[in-house]
Amino acid sequence: MAEKKKEKDRNRTIDPAALEVLAKTEGSGVETAYDRYLNMQPQCNYGNTGICCTICIQGPCRITKKASKGICGAAPYTIVARNLVRHVLGGTSAHCDHGMHIMSVMREIADGHESDYGITDPAKLKRVATQLDIAVEGRSDLEIFKDVVDLAEQEFSRLDKRTYSKWMQATVVPERVEKAMDCSIMPNSIHKTIAESMAQTHMGMDADPVNLVFQALKAALCDYIGMHISTDLSDILFGTPTPVVSEGNMGVLEEKMVNIALHGHNPVLSEMIVKAAREMQDEAKEAGAEGIKCMGICCTGNEVLMRQGVPVLTNFLSQELAIMTGAVDAMVVDVQCIMPGIQSVAECYHTKIITTIPNAKIPSSYYVDFDDTRAMEKAREIVTVAIEAFKERNPEKINIPQEKHKIVAGFSLEAMEDILGALSPESPIKAVTDAVDSGELEGVCLFAGCNNLKVPHDDSHFTIATELAKNDVLLVSTGCAAGTFGKLGLLNGDAIEKYAGDGLKAFLKRLNDANKDKLGDDLPLIFHMGSCVDNTRCYDFVTALAKQWGVDTPKVPFVASAPEAMSEKAVSIGSWCVTLGVPTHVGVIPPIPGSPLVDGIALQIAQDVYGGYFMWEEDPMEASKKLMDALQERTWKMKVHKMAAEKYETEISKTW
Amino acid sequence: MAEKKKEKDRNRTIDPAALEVLAKTEGSGVETAYDRYLNMQPQCNYGNTGICCTICIQGPCRITKKASKGICGAAPYTIVARNLVRHVLGGTSAHCDHGMHIMSVMREIADGHESDYGITDPAKLKRVATQLDIAVEGRSDLEIFKDVVDLAEQEFSRLDKRTYSKWMQATVVPERVEKAMDCSIMPNSIHKTIAESMAQTHMGMDADPVNLVFQALKAALCDYIGMHISTDLSDILFGTPTPVVSEGNMGVLEEKMVNIALHGHNPVLSEMIVKAAREMQDEAKEAGAEGIKCMGICCTGNEVLMRQGVPVLTNFLSQELAIMTGAVDAMVVDVQCIMPGIQSVAECYHTKIITTIPNAKIPSSYYVDFDDTRAMEKAREIVTVAIEAFKERNPEKINIPQEKHKIVAGFSLEAMEDILGALSPESPIKAVTDAVDSGELEGVCLFAGCNNLKVPHDDSHFTIATELAKNDVLLVSTGCAAGTFGKLGLLNGDAIEKYAGDGLKAFLKRLNDANKDKLGDDLPLIFHMGSCVDNTRCYDFVTALAKQWGVDTPKVPFVASAPEAMSEKAVSIGSWCVTLGVPTHVGVIPPIPGSPLVDGIALQIAQDVYGGYFMWEEDPMEASKKLMDALQERTWKMKVHKMAAEKYETEISKTW
Repeated sequence: MAEKKKEKDRNRTIDPAALEVLAKTEGSGVETAYDRYLNMQPQCNYGNTGICCTICIQGPCRITKKASKGICGAAPYTIVARNLVRHVLGGTSAHCDHGMHIMSVMREIADGHESDYGITDPAKLKRVATQLDIAVEGRSDLEIFKDVVDLAEQEFSRLDKRTYSKWMQATVVPERVEKAMDCSIMPNSIHKTIAESMAQTHMGMDADPVNLVFQALKAALCDYIGMHISTDLSDILFGTPTPVVSEGNMGVLEEKMVNIALHGHNPVLSEMIVKAAREMQDEAKEAGAEGIKCMGICCTGNEVLMRQGVPVLTNFLSQELAIMTGAVDAMVVDVQCIMPGIQSVAECYHTKIITTIPNAKIPSSYYVDFDDTRAMEKAREIVTVAIEAFKERNPEKINIPQEKHKIVAGFSLEAMEDILGALSPESPIKAVTDAVDSGELEGVCLFAGCNNLKVPHDDSHFTIATELAKNDVLLVSTGCAAGTFGKLGLLNGDAIEKYAGDGLKAFLKRLNDANKDKLGDDLPLIFHMGSCVDNTRCYDFVTALAKQWGVDTPKVPFVASAPEAMSEKAVSIGSWCVTLGVPTHVGVIPPIPGSPLVDGIALQIAQDVYGGYFMWEEDPMEASKKLMDALQERTWKMKVHKMAAEKYETEISKTW
Repeated sequence: MAEKKKEKDRNRTIDPAALEVLAKTEGSGVETAYDRYLNMQPQCNYGNTGICCTICIQGPCRITKKASKGICGAAPYTIVARNLVRHVLGGTSAHCDHGMHIMSVMREIADGHESDYGITDPAKLKRVATQLDIAVEGRSDLEIFKDVVDLAEQEFSRLDKRTYSKWMQATVVPERVEKAMDCSIMPNSIHKTIAESMAQTHMGMDADPVNLVFQALKAALCDYIGMHISTDLSDILFGTPTPVVSEGNMGVLEEKMVNIALHGHNPVLSEMIVKAAREMQDEAKEAGAEGIKCMGICCTGNEVLMRQGVPVLTNFLSQELAIMTGAVDAMVVDVQCIMPGIQSVAECYHTKIITTIPNAKIPSSYYVDFDDTRAMEKAREIVTVAIEAFKERNPEKINIPQEKHKIVAGFSLEAMEDILGALSPESPIKAVTDAVDSGELEGVCLFAGCNNLKVPHDDSHFTIATELAKNDVLLVSTGCAAGTFGKLGLLNGDAIEKYAGDGLKAFLKRLNDANKDKLGDDLPLIFHMGSCVDNTRCYDFVTALAKQWGVDTPKVPFVASAPEAMSEKAVSIGSWCVTLGVPTHVGVIPPIPGSPLVDGIALQIAQDVYGGYFMWEEDPMEASKKLMDALQERTWKMKVHKMAAEKYETEISKTW
């Protein structure tokens, strides 16, 4: 019955703006992901459960009653585990490519080449350097910077099998490094691990599912490392985010302005476009517009929201719908999660799709090679294309939904600590551990991940978040989950009154009161910590909590939820979360249950070995319960052991 | 009709030994790939043609009439091209992992750690160093060796975007480097390219099929580089092959000896086991055997055949059948193309499956961690297990087919040049170009690649090779193609009389006569140049021919054929062959035709851009014709332009 409905309903979203666009364009012949999803039903169940193997061209092999193994003899557990490794590799490579791009900009600066980029945040530079045991005293920013770039490069390229990732060792609790060493999954470097993992999944290589899953986790740790490097370097180049006030959802489009949607993931391009757009308001006025407005989609959107206060247009799934407002003059895209479908949609409107990166092109799109050694020049070229496109608008096609909400974002961990420090100056994070210890908070939950039409758009994010808020869980968020919350009004102070339970309400009120003089606005119900690559900011939060409590991370009442996971990046992020001790809910079942053995590793054995584990649960209310259970188990244990430790005057970390 | 037969016939091989084992075990309940292939029919046509996408977990998406694009809007050309990139990456990573293993052994030596390995071939070391512009004059072997290892490591790990692969620049004609630069596919290094290519195929990254296919070719060039490094380093460590006489097919099993099958791809393990086995004959005698006999399967087999004269037991597809002779005491495997199915088969016999490499395990197998820093100790441990297993033999289950043939192998390019030099001392390769120019030979064909049950085992290899021999084509071979030829009696002098056309016969006779004093036996019909990783030896042959003629490689009458391509390595090898100018026949249609656009790039546009191109052809007689056409077109053009060049006294390379 539910399945029937799912298959027939095109309006698979709870976002009012998206629903309005879908309604207004019904029957127009413009096809979007919402239509293509219906056309694709039913989806192949072999692929859905992971028991289809296309790794060699003697295949494809799929496991059936008649064929219980692949032609080579690969059991379902081998097939599922190999596919899982490759999914993680897709995610790890994507994040690391992102890091490589930022690193190549930094290499130019370090080598003294001319650049439109520079060191924007020397304080972050010094913090990062200090964490990595790079000397800072008495050295110039550039000297420190060079050492950071050198080390970052080594984290990607190191071959030496006796040297392990410095970035990981510098950022997680020592117990997690020990665990990774014990399980032989501590990476030497990113690129080597990607190559060796890919080799391990070749035909006739590894058939052992545990070995394969562990390698997936090793690759996932490289994802963690690459992401952490990306975030750290982005902060150095573009500044560490601090609280900003903005808005979200399609109502941010301005009928009389040149609207530029920035879509993708990388701040290298978007930061420069925002800058160029600010400088080129006059050119826009000459073209008959009142000015230029930039707005974001997906994680490029998050990057420029966090640092520049650029409003959020929409999140992943509704990227095509944004064009169908008829008011987007240019959609400038960089990398990842760009639906190829946007081009066909744009061709029904005046919108220019501007692709910018050599390894992410779309046929028929307008391609501007974003050479970052001529960044500003290229950014101006792109903005000029948008201004030109504005002139081609068809007023009859303009339909801007009036939906938008205030967003308070910009919560890097540094910003969080600054705010928490107002309650607990000697150790900011103690404000949270105290609130958990006292029972005011039940723990912390990270909402991350994408959108996925297998579940209704934005629904699970919204439902689970409000349910957890009601149950006094402190909420942080990134990526397209944060996109949902921004669009639907959960990233502002008004949402606290509406959704928070008494404990959370009290905690946030105290925080708000303590920071009144500092902030221009109320704190939000959910703290937006950045783009999906910034999930390491959230994990740094876990590490800080663990250190404050004096325990390993599997004891920290912190859970993660990716209710609408879609991309391989979500798979790799989820995998390192689990490896690093975090119970992780995924609301779309990944292609794993085809092997009960591998499924069991993900759901149970992972907990025995790493402390973290997965929970697959499509139903948002059920998922909320499971997340609460996971938190409460940890909070309860923490209390028991804290009491015992106090009574017997021992350290709590060693007792369970 | 043909399809019907294909689906029902379990005896899909022309190898008499394999047929005998299949016949004798019919109805025994022991399941092999031949059975599983039947169970798997019909195979999924979406996967077969490449239009199934599982890259994000919003999928799987498959292209149908109803769903002409993926949910994200990916067109069939994007889906097929992305899958192709990932197949090439699988192959490239596998070969490069092989190279990394050898390199790590060399790093230990270079750093002065104790090792059971050493520099076996200082002459090769100096040749390789000289090619790479590493100084050799007045330097010790170890000094040169260290520089070679350093450079090899850089070829894997380099990040600098302004420095390009040295190994490629040192080994191909300059025009090929220019072409790669022009097309932006010249790699900086292997690991970086693998990571960036994987990223390029992430959801919402590249949708442009040409861009994706070109990236696949860039990754394939890294395969070339990694393979070349692997072969060069193997020769330095274990010696450059020279002609050896041996035997092939299951008749090499000895009823009264401890039979150790060496299976996989890497000489690091197998060389040491052969050595240990030679030393441990007494232990075997104590166990009641007459001694120990090593024999090879797949490319580990080729490695030890080429350097140690170890006989060939069988090739890829019949690896399980070897166990079913009841006479294999241990099958020692390292990496790649190890069917997981061997373990279940072995459990019906006394055979021990010994896995040895941390990233290639099989559940329930006997695992010995082949720590190459204690190589000899570990090799002895493995041989001991085999001797113990010998005692467990069940005489009733022993059925050794009496099929075997003489093999003359060991034809590294150096060995080929040595032999050709007897005809043409000043420039050995001129012996071949002269024979082509005079019309004695029609050109050269490389047979490479695997086995694949989509076509009858060994049939296409045999049919096409004998057909081309009849048409005076000089034949070279590697990998499981060479396995076929060894098993079926084409790697010896007797085959010349039987199969060679008059021209080839005359050429080989002259060669034989000129080398009479040097060789212990007649030259073979087909020259076995090594394992599949050694295909670069064959491409060095193309380069040598091009240099001799003074042309770029797309003008050289040299073709390649992989009639039974199966693994991703075959896809990557085929792709660099095409990129480097070689018309390449593939006898199993890879998952590409689902996009006529990508198919067209492979079959036609590749020729316009790179000079090489693919030919898909399942029928071996048709394939022979296409290969002959490709050769004759080039030979004819060469003659015309040679005549013109002579007439007008110009260089021929610039004229077409």
